[in-house]
Amino acid sequence: MSQSIFWIGVDWGITHLRCYALDEEGNLLDSASSKDGISKIKDAKFEEALLTVIDPWLESGKVTPILACGMVGSRNGWIETPFQKTPCKPCDFEQFVKITGNDSRIKIYVIPGVANLKQIDLMRSEETQLAGLLCNMDSAIVCLPGTHSKWVQIKDGRIEKFSTFITGELFDLISNKSMIRYSVNKDGWDNNAFTEGVLSGFKTPELLSNSFFKLRADDLMNSIDRAFLRSKLSGLIIGLELGGAKEYLKQQNVQLIGEPVLNNLYSIALNLLKVETSTHSASQITLSGLKYAFNSMQKNLKSV
Amino acid sequence: MSQSIFWIGVDWGITHLRCYALDEEGNLLDSASSKDGISKIKDAKFEEALLTVIDPWLESGKVTPILACGMVGSRNGWIETPFQKTPCKPCDFEQFVKITGNDSRIKIYVIPGVANLKQIDLMRSEETQLAGLLCNMDSAIVCLPGTHSKWVQIKDGRIEKFSTFITGELFDLISNKSMIRYSVNKDGWDNNAFTEGVLSGFKTPELLSNSFFKLRADDLMNSIDRAFLRSKLSGLIIGLELGGAKEYLKQQNVQLIGEPVLNNLYSIALNLLKVETSTHSASQITLSGLKYAFNSMQKNLKSV
Repeated sequence: MSQSIFWIGVDWGITHLRCYALDEEGNLLDSASSKDGISKIKDAKFEEALLTVIDPWLESGKVTPILACGMVGSRNGWIETPFQKTPCKPCDFEQFVKITGNDSRIKIYVIPGVANLKQIDLMRSEETQLAGLLCNMDSAIVCLPGTHSKWVQIKDGRIEKFSTFITGELFDLISNKSMIRYSVNKDGWDNNAFTEGVLSGFKTPELLSNSFFKLRADDLMNSIDRAFLRSKLSGLIIGLELGGAKEYLKQQNVQLIGEPVLNNLYSIALNLLKVETSTHSASQITLSGLKYAFNSMQKNLKSV
Repeated sequence: MSQSIFWIGVDWGITHLRCYALDEEGNLLDSASSKDGISKIKDAKFEEALLTVIDPWLESGKVTPILACGMVGSRNGWIETPFQKTPCKPCDFEQFVKITGNDSRIKIYVIPGVANLKQIDLMRSEETQLAGLLCNMDSAIVCLPGTHSKWVQIKDGRIEKFSTFITGELFDLISNKSMIRYSVNKDGWDNNAFTEGVLSGFKTPELLSNSFFKLRADDLMNSIDRAFLRSKLSGLIIGLELGGAKEYLKQQNVQLIGEPVLNNLYSIALNLLKVETSTHSASQITLSGLKYAFNSMQKNLKSV
């Protein structure tokens, strides 16, 4: 198989390392991953962690270009890449940063993140997903739900502005680390509770920390089902995000790029607010973005 | 000293056990405490933990009454006491719950907490502080800042309604457990940043989880001082609480019952919103409340 591998795409985040082997036409030949996210790498052994995954794809005497996105380009990553600044086209090949490693079989390029100087905000890896989306449309309102959800306005192929909300992290802290953890189940789901939470978080965001306490009180006083309370908690925090993203909600369609479970929850929440959604798989669109980025680099640099 | 000790007041919370020895007129003769909060007690050894602190005050052949408030009366405490229901006078002696222990030198009574059925809310220990406040006034808007801040409306000596906000817990989670912990100092303080945070949290609560992320971005992008960022975080979360407590802010004076540092921060924050404050020391007012509760029990029960 390695004979036809032309390049390797890499999505390297905090907790994961995902690699894709592609041929010259961008067809996916193989994929592999490990849990060596950048938070796991000790003594800057980034190259070793990468080679552990991609070594079977490499040939001696041949140089395979590697294009990587994500936190690998952050302060705690392999190399800190300067941010592109909004408004900008994502994945500008002229700003890719080359890493010189020890293994002569690879050449590594890192895609820089994007900074929004005016609104004080940052992204790394989402710019590659946005580049993937841009293969199909050139203007959109995009929501990328997750640990740090992002809302992005794209116009004429450029990122105009964006905002980050720590929705997933806040849900994790409250449901696993706060006193409320005793009142929310790990399992089970209740759509009505989620809906109730979304509308409450959206309409009365100022009551957020009071609503958190009430989940606990509702358990102690009324023995409310804990799957109900967990679903409501999820709704409250997503509803808060949607309230904060109001400036992005003027259009009637939002492109959701996320894991299927999150895409589904955000669709339900946005539909409640009369906003329609289209969904895209996060991993597929990342691969599309890596391909877009590699092709633009290829077209412009005769030899990579 | 033990000859003149007539009764013992106890404030027993999650993380502390504070005991006060008083004479028949309510004069404080001695005080002692330990870190045996109810979360530390194993195998229900409550009596042992209490005796460790108060044993020097007890005499054989004499029964000393003990009046306790706080989480000692909760599901995880020594005995679960039923809640009084709003509207109600706090510390109604008819609802005190007697515990029969093993040591014949003591008789223990526990003050029940208060439940707000309509607004789904609970308090334990704050009702005793409110009883202390009621020695000096019979109507007030009260704020008890802390891990779980409470806002209370008192009218004609009764608790009409109240709301809890997990302000202190949220600050602890974000500043110590979230990704933002890397951008906030343990030490240092900046009043301007706090003011900025209060106004932002109060006016745009829907941007809370976006504002959290911006603290991190402001550190990475602009190298903003981390004491500034911590003070702003504190302001954001207190500002959110004040936004949620708007229904309590119609009066122009708020009674603050808390630790001096928190009383000071809340005074600054409320003054920004043109609300005046009076401050009361939490531990002193707890003692006043215990005395009030003991006296009302004494007057009505000939022998305790």
